Amino acid sequence: MQTGSLLTPSTLDEFTRCLRQLPGEKFFVLCDSNTWHHCFPVVVDSFSERPCHVHIIPAGEQYKQPETLLGILHELSQQSFQRNDVLVNLGGGTVSDIGGLAAALYQRGMPYVNLPTTLLAMADAAHGGKTAVDFNGIKNQIGAIWFPTQTIVYQRFLQTLPIRELKAGYVEVLKQSLLAGKKAWRQASRRSPETLMKEPEIIHEAARFKMRIVRKDPYDRDLRQILNLGHTIGHAIEAWSLQQKEGPLLHGEAVALGLMAEMRLACALTDLDTNFANEVNRIMTRFIHAPVPPVAAIDDLLRLMLHDKKNRGAAVRFSLLARPGKAITGVSAGEDRIRAALEETLTGIHTLP
Amino acid sequence: MQTGSLLTPSTLDEFTRCLRQLPGEKFFVLCDSNTWHHCFPVVVDSFSERPCHVHIIPAGEQYKQPETLLGILHELSQQSFQRNDVLVNLGGGTVSDIGGLAAALYQRGMPYVNLPTTLLAMADAAHGGKTAVDFNGIKNQIGAIWFPTQTIVYQRFLQTLPIRELKAGYVEVLKQSLLAGKKAWRQASRRSPETLMKEPEIIHEAARFKMRIVRKDPYDRDLRQILNLGHTIGHAIEAWSLQQKEGPLLHGEAVALGLMAEMRLACALTDLDTNFANEVNRIMTRFIHAPVPPVAAIDDLLRLMLHDKKNRGAAVRFSLLARPGKAITGVSAGEDRIRAALEETLTGIHTLP
Repeated sequence: MQTGSLLTPSTLDEFTRCLRQLPGEKFFVLCDSNTWHHCFPVVVDSFSERPCHVHIIPAGEQYKQPETLLGILHELSQQSFQRNDVLVNLGGGTVSDIGGLAAALYQRGMPYVNLPTTLLAMADAAHGGKTAVDFNGIKNQIGAIWFPTQTIVYQRFLQTLPIRELKAGYVEVLKQSLLAGKKAWRQASRRSPETLMKEPEIIHEAARFKMRIVRKDPYDRDLRQILNLGHTIGHAIEAWSLQQKEGPLLHGEAVALGLMAEMRLACALTDLDTNFANEVNRIMTRFIHAPVPPVAAIDDLLRLMLHDKKNRGAAVRFSLLARPGKAITGVSAGEDRIRAALEETLTGIHTLP
Repeated sequence: MQTGSLLTPSTLDEFTRCLRQLPGEKFFVLCDSNTWHHCFPVVVDSFSERPCHVHIIPAGEQYKQPETLLGILHELSQQSFQRNDVLVNLGGGTVSDIGGLAAALYQRGMPYVNLPTTLLAMADAAHGGKTAVDFNGIKNQIGAIWFPTQTIVYQRFLQTLPIRELKAGYVEVLKQSLLAGKKAWRQASRRSPETLMKEPEIIHEAARFKMRIVRKDPYDRDLRQILNLGHTIGHAIEAWSLQQKEGPLLHGEAVALGLMAEMRLACALTDLDTNFANEVNRIMTRFIHAPVPPVAAIDDLLRLMLHDKKNRGAAVRFSLLARPGKAITGVSAGEDRIRAALEETLTGIHTLP
């Protein structure tokens, strides 16, 4: 299985060269309304020599829906794209999730390329071929695993990002580093998202780590599930936040909370060292954002988790850290235990000075 | 790549045993309004020991649309199906195409089983993992390749079929036999669809032949394209028939016409023996049905073909027979040649005594 290649040009010249060398006769460039303004001007010249159609979708996770997907598929069809043409996703995780799914489905599969423009996408979402839309109030309920032929990480796009998004994306860098080992965690946890433009190596490390895992288990049958660390609870919190008037949370913000609660679970279920869990949680508090679920929302969160696709039957299954560099997949946790971990975490946050 | 297994029980007892041995904790059975009435009663007892939810879609290719697909996905979600549960397609090609696609997409892929109830599905459509819905007026424009874990061919379902459908399905049996070789063609072309209930071996042969090809090229990169024989023109005729007031044609009826025109093309482009082409076309005339496109519709057909996904750029590419048992894929044909083949074929039919 080809899981796609990763390119990491550091200058605009190098980036432009990568784009000009893309194979394909005709391009369909998918932007959202932000990347159309801020990022498309950077790449437009590179696509000028071959036919190129630009399609713009509204920015925001709330548009990651079947209707938007059908709009893209309709445009591909109207513009007579063929299955050997190339779809290019210029954007964050929402764009690559929905554009990747359109590529997976159009004429039963066309090639696509990811040009991630957010830190979250550069470090995580743009790699690994998981594509999806949300449906029926549940995240990523409809999707496919379909790999990009290339992902090109060009860190200068980060300067177009608000600091809130940069911080939320850094949570995935930190998560990747927890899985990679103590040294990676030390390096990532001591840096800050503001310095990444000058030190893109830390993004590339996170991306390469993910690619290594994905290559060993492209279809998410076992090993790859370690990447769900923080996400079982994180996804529930993210879905919950969609219904709040101060919401929604960014994905990374929800995962920061998810990681905190899952560190507590890990102390109980995989003997994770409590001091280390506390250290992780101290760092994570830098990345949380309102709305944080009150303790009274725990019932809602549990209900949302039972819809999470990593479960079997009634048990909720987690990927939990045992120590830095070692996660255990498929750990079952009863409702009481999850409730206790959430209560401890959420109470702790709400009583922060 | 697991392309799924094929079971061919010949008695109701054997069939029931196959169903009871299906792995899975919970079943989602997809029927159309015909198979719900005529076929579901045959299987209902076999599913009685495990939780089973039945979802019924309207019968007919015209419902093979994104809306119907989203309806199935919504029901899977509402009923809290998990990705280790099993979707069962009880129906013809439309049901297995749309149900297979729902299985491919739900939570990024759940297992499914095909129980084909039409001859077309038993001999062809239920095997090989191609799933799709029609979109924007184009057949199978949105889809995925996602393999059933099992396909169980139980020929007694054929007694629920109108003779018109039985005849149309036999066209795929004949197509498969043309690709399998002279002996297979002799056997299939000398039998008739009416005797299949007593001689199911001929269906099993067609199914096994298709499975052999699919196993060698699951993702339709090269070899598998021989199976498109008759379908490049056939699909265009099928799409055209959707807009006619006497239409639509059944898939096999359109493919019979497609095979006839592509035999003419093959005489010109792959040196197919003219006598053999005439023999095939004589047999095929038994399977055609009104509306047959008039010569004046050829422009429309050409336009529809340019949307066909087997093409690259402006050229139309065909899989053409060179001799029984030998097809050549990717043969380019110019517009003039296709027009000539269509004119000869359609004029011939319209002047039949």
